[in-house]
Amino acid sequence: MTTYAGHDLNEIVTCVHADMAAHIGRGRVADYIPALARIDPCQFGIAIAANDGRTASAGDAETQFSIQSISKVFTLALALERNGPALWQRVGREPSGSRFNSIVQLEQEKGIPRNPLINAGALVVTDALMGAAAPGDTIDRVTAFLRRLADDPSIAIDEEVAASEADTGFRNASLAYFLRANGNLYGAVEDVLRVYFHQCALRMNCRQLARAGLFLANEGIDPFTGEQHSCAMTTRSVNALMMTCGHYDASGDFAFRVGIPGKSGVGGGILAIAPGRAAIAVWSPGLNAAGNSEVGALALERLVALTGWSVF
Amino acid sequence: MTTYAGHDLNEIVTCVHADMAAHIGRGRVADYIPALARIDPCQFGIAIAANDGRTASAGDAETQFSIQSISKVFTLALALERNGPALWQRVGREPSGSRFNSIVQLEQEKGIPRNPLINAGALVVTDALMGAAAPGDTIDRVTAFLRRLADDPSIAIDEEVAASEADTGFRNASLAYFLRANGNLYGAVEDVLRVYFHQCALRMNCRQLARAGLFLANEGIDPFTGEQHSCAMTTRSVNALMMTCGHYDASGDFAFRVGIPGKSGVGGGILAIAPGRAAIAVWSPGLNAAGNSEVGALALERLVALTGWSVF
Amino acid sequence: MTTYAGHDLNEIVTCVHADMAAHIGRGRVADYIPALARIDPCQFGIAIAANDGRTASAGDAETQFSIQSISKVFTLALALERNGPALWQRVGREPSGSRFNSIVQLEQEKGIPRNPLINAGALVVTDALMGAAAPGDTIDRVTAFLRRLADDPSIAIDEEVAASEADTGFRNASLAYFLRANGNLYGAVEDVLRVYFHQCALRMNCRQLARAGLFLANEGIDPFTGEQHSCAMTTRSVNALMMTCGHYDASGDFAFRVGIPGKSGVGGGILAIAPGRAAIAVWSPGLNAAGNSEVGALALERLVALTGWSVF
Amino acid sequence: MTTYAGHDLNEIVTCVHADMAAHIGRGRVADYIPALARIDPCQFGIAIAANDGRTASAGDAETQFSIQSISKVFTLALALERNGPALWQRVGREPSGSRFNSIVQLEQEKGIPRNPLINAGALVVTDALMGAAAPGDTIDRVTAFLRRLADDPSIAIDEEVAASEADTGFRNASLAYFLRANGNLYGAVEDVLRVYFHQCALRMNCRQLARAGLFLANEGIDPFTGEQHSCAMTTRSVNALMMTCGHYDASGDFAFRVGIPGKSGVGGGILAIAPGRAAIAVWSPGLNAAGNSEVGALALERLVALTGWSVF
Repeated sequence: MTTYAGHDLNEIVTCVHADMAAHIGRGRVADYIPALARIDPCQFGIAIAANDGRTASAGDAETQFSIQSISKVFTLALALERNGPALWQRVGREPSGSRFNSIVQLEQEKGIPRNPLINAGALVVTDALMGAAAPGDTIDRVTAFLRRLADDPSIAIDEEVAASEADTGFRNASLAYFLRANGNLYGAVEDVLRVYFHQCALRMNCRQLARAGLFLANEGIDPFTGEQHSCAMTTRSVNALMMTCGHYDASGDFAFRVGIPGKSGVGGGILAIAPGRAAIAVWSPGLNAAGNSEVGALALERLVALTGWSVF
Repeated sequence: MTTYAGHDLNEIVTCVHADMAAHIGRGRVADYIPALARIDPCQFGIAIAANDGRTASAGDAETQFSIQSISKVFTLALALERNGPALWQRVGREPSGSRFNSIVQLEQEKGIPRNPLINAGALVVTDALMGAAAPGDTIDRVTAFLRRLADDPSIAIDEEVAASEADTGFRNASLAYFLRANGNLYGAVEDVLRVYFHQCALRMNCRQLARAGLFLANEGIDPFTGEQHSCAMTTRSVNALMMTCGHYDASGDFAFRVGIPGKSGVGGGILAIAPGRAAIAVWSPGLNAAGNSEVGALALERLVALTGWSVF
Repeated sequence: MTTYAGHDLNEIVTCVHADMAAHIGRGRVADYIPALARIDPCQFGIAIAANDGRTASAGDAETQFSIQSISKVFTLALALERNGPALWQRVGREPSGSRFNSIVQLEQEKGIPRNPLINAGALVVTDALMGAAAPGDTIDRVTAFLRRLADDPSIAIDEEVAASEADTGFRNASLAYFLRANGNLYGAVEDVLRVYFHQCALRMNCRQLARAGLFLANEGIDPFTGEQHSCAMTTRSVNALMMTCGHYDASGDFAFRVGIPGKSGVGGGILAIAPGRAAIAVWSPGLNAAGNSEVGALALERLVALTGWSVF
Repeated sequence: MTTYAGHDLNEIVTCVHADMAAHIGRGRVADYIPALARIDPCQFGIAIAANDGRTASAGDAETQFSIQSISKVFTLALALERNGPALWQRVGREPSGSRFNSIVQLEQEKGIPRNPLINAGALVVTDALMGAAAPGDTIDRVTAFLRRLADDPSIAIDEEVAASEADTGFRNASLAYFLRANGNLYGAVEDVLRVYFHQCALRMNCRQLARAGLFLANEGIDPFTGEQHSCAMTTRSVNALMMTCGHYDASGDFAFRVGIPGKSGVGGGILAIAPGRAAIAVWSPGLNAAGNSEVGALALERLVALTGWSVF
């Protein structure tokens, strides 16, 4: 049995799960849409998929949740594969120093979002991905990519969540119109928003999410199936951006405390990548002030302490 | 004959008109919508309507132009009459230190626009004015107000301009959605934008505009007809805001150089008020870097030098 | 007897004084230096000096206080007389939209302060005024100017306050070094700060201050003595700047509520100018959130309501 | 012979050196102090010190240069060892999204610098390091630390550079006074600046710098001597901060292109850490627009491509 700093994977997830018992329920569940607000905060799941083919999980690892902004990682990988480095003409690669949905920097920098993992940048990525295609086809393409990555055809979009996002997504609409005003959104604003709201509404559980992220830990290749989902340059690019920009205005803190690339979503999930080793998904709905899963980040901090997977 | 610092009104407008000959054509015509871009820049008009019942005009004072942001002055007066001081819960009274369509301060100040004469503030005013009414009825009400003020039933909206605004008004849409996201727009975004784009598309000439603004120089009462259009508190409020905020990020400079309240529009018009004395409308399509009529401001500077109408 | 909207000056100050009884003690006394912190907040003084040669005062009009930022008005007038319009290469004329001691805009605008009435701008004015002179000579020149304006050789600097300012003026030191780094301070930083801290520490009472400001209401000429202290262009310039920038980030509100140019100081004084009519000084130590005398502004609002002196 | 992705260390530095020939001389030499401005831009040095005890160098690896901001890494490590996590009460851990010497964020965040690798943050670190000690003793302590790390008693401060910094360091003085005004600098401003200007003026060559940084690649222990210079938590903290904040407003780009933690200085040096493997120093005086060595960054990008040392 392969060991990780002397532990096997099952020991690790069991230990992290046990350590989280004292913290579960912390933070505040996102309440801007009804479908998220009614989630029970006292849940915690963790799953690991390792490059060596092993997997392990604990807690509520089979409970599905809304992946929300974690979807930005997958659309970015898809867009880089499709559009290549030309994407960097339209979106930067720098941490924003601002909240996920800030419009200030967008104005100061004339419609070029700081990075693809804040909302404005993700809207540009979605627009690039859509190109001249219909919104419905693009939504299908993103869903199909996630199914292929997770090797699980059951992954689907929660239409109720998607509809709620559309109803209340005024700030994202504001960002999208601002991008359009600056010539950095080519599709119709409603179409781009439609795709964006749907990608955020993808439902997955920790097991599926860790599995879907595994190609990022293995230079683009699924170690289970051998399938090449992207080139190694794409995964290194995505990982670097997750490290510097994956937790909005708390990215530096996450890098400092956890030490591996990660991307959070307001549904309470975090996907983290230990390059060359494993993908990890954690989920706990309570968010801290910066909008990231409080217990999820704590769990990853603990996991890295146990495994020594920090890249630093 | 009443004189103004030893001149009569006709002498004054003739003199200002003559002095502008050397400057006409300066600045850059607004080109963000086709209907504005094709205007001949080499035009200049001036008209004065005085509290003593006299009027005078020179140059292209009969040529109609799009009043654009000058409409904000009239909707503000209407909204103050209708909503009273409650309006100040939703919009500030401070100069913005930013461009007319900036979204930065809006974020920093949580959706409360700095003042009612920048675009974000004017959208709130329009929303307040509309209340629960239909957009069409509100457009009719604004038009009717202008006709009554100018005592001229021919004043109308240029539907081509209104449609162009709607087509390209992404930045205003961004501002409106941002206000909506912050709970500071009660009506549907499209409805508020529809009214806003129509009020900006009102067509008037200098003579009509000076006449329409005269109530602001006379504590709310039209000296020609005796009709009371607003209370004195409203006109003092509007004049104070025109002085500190009427020229966007160049308001301080206008106050410094001209010394009376004024409001500019990207169509090249400026409405200026000499409280207790007269309303003045100038028009010349070329704009300076701050988006205000270059020759128009020069003409007002000259006019105030001749008349001594500076409030300072 | 000359009347003002049916009242004589004594009636007016008596009435304003009486009306303030209910409000006295409001606001928070500036506490950043000990000499200011120990002032009794329950004081109020008012004095008017009119262009027609009359004066009136009420309350604590003979109690001296630290004029602080009101000194910026006098150094600006002196510098404009000395340096002329060249000063505007080094400092702008726009409201700042920020607090009195903000450094943000200074960075965004590369060391050109927004206007001469915020701290950064006043430091540039003081530097321009000093030129190659020694700091002590410049301090003497400013003091002499105030004595001449007020026709009162007893006006002097409170050396304890000046020393306290120097001890704790880290933020002003930061601004001064920032200006120096941008090449917009020519003298040595310590010298400019020395003059600045001394001008702020001038002690005057309401009667002296109204008298000293009277030239601003009368195109530069002291109506009592006939002496010309500045040209009319300087007074109009200073008044315009007081209107748009005299109360930091609450300038728009002061213009709206009071309607005449004014300049506040953290000592609790406000100098207001009714052009063509009178200069008014009010004093009450409690400050509002924006750093302006709360009762002082209220008193001026009341005074303008009584006299009809609003320029709007 | 230990190999790195099939190459030995000498091959790697030789190859990188050769590849840089086409680029040498690019960028702009820092010219804000004379001692830096007169450096010949057409120089390039590289040195590696590996955890396995090997070293290699090429080009101008023996030429000394001013390490400037690279010194921030060493004072941070010292301060973390001395003050522990209490330091994080006074300075953040987030990328700034701004230039190295920006004062904007400092104001918005009330005197808490965003991170210890921008100038404001480094001033706080230096202040914390100094405590109640004399500036001279602190300078000696920093120098002694560098000598011990590099195992080289010849390392010294360039007093000419230190004096030049002091002469022209108005912007740093502005930052320091700003911190002082916010209560986040405890020592006298001049003392803190004195230490800061001296630490920036340390002269080292690439060989010495790589050697001095090696403890960061090896959990605090010098693999050559076995000496423990810091705990592993300190090195992981420092490396994480170098990754997210080490290149000012181009940190995201460096992480993306190079993929290992690094810290640049305006002298043209960059110290990069491949955790668990090696420390690398490169030097070439020409800077890019963000103030980082243009050819140095290119060389590191090439080196990581050859060695596969990216942490992503």
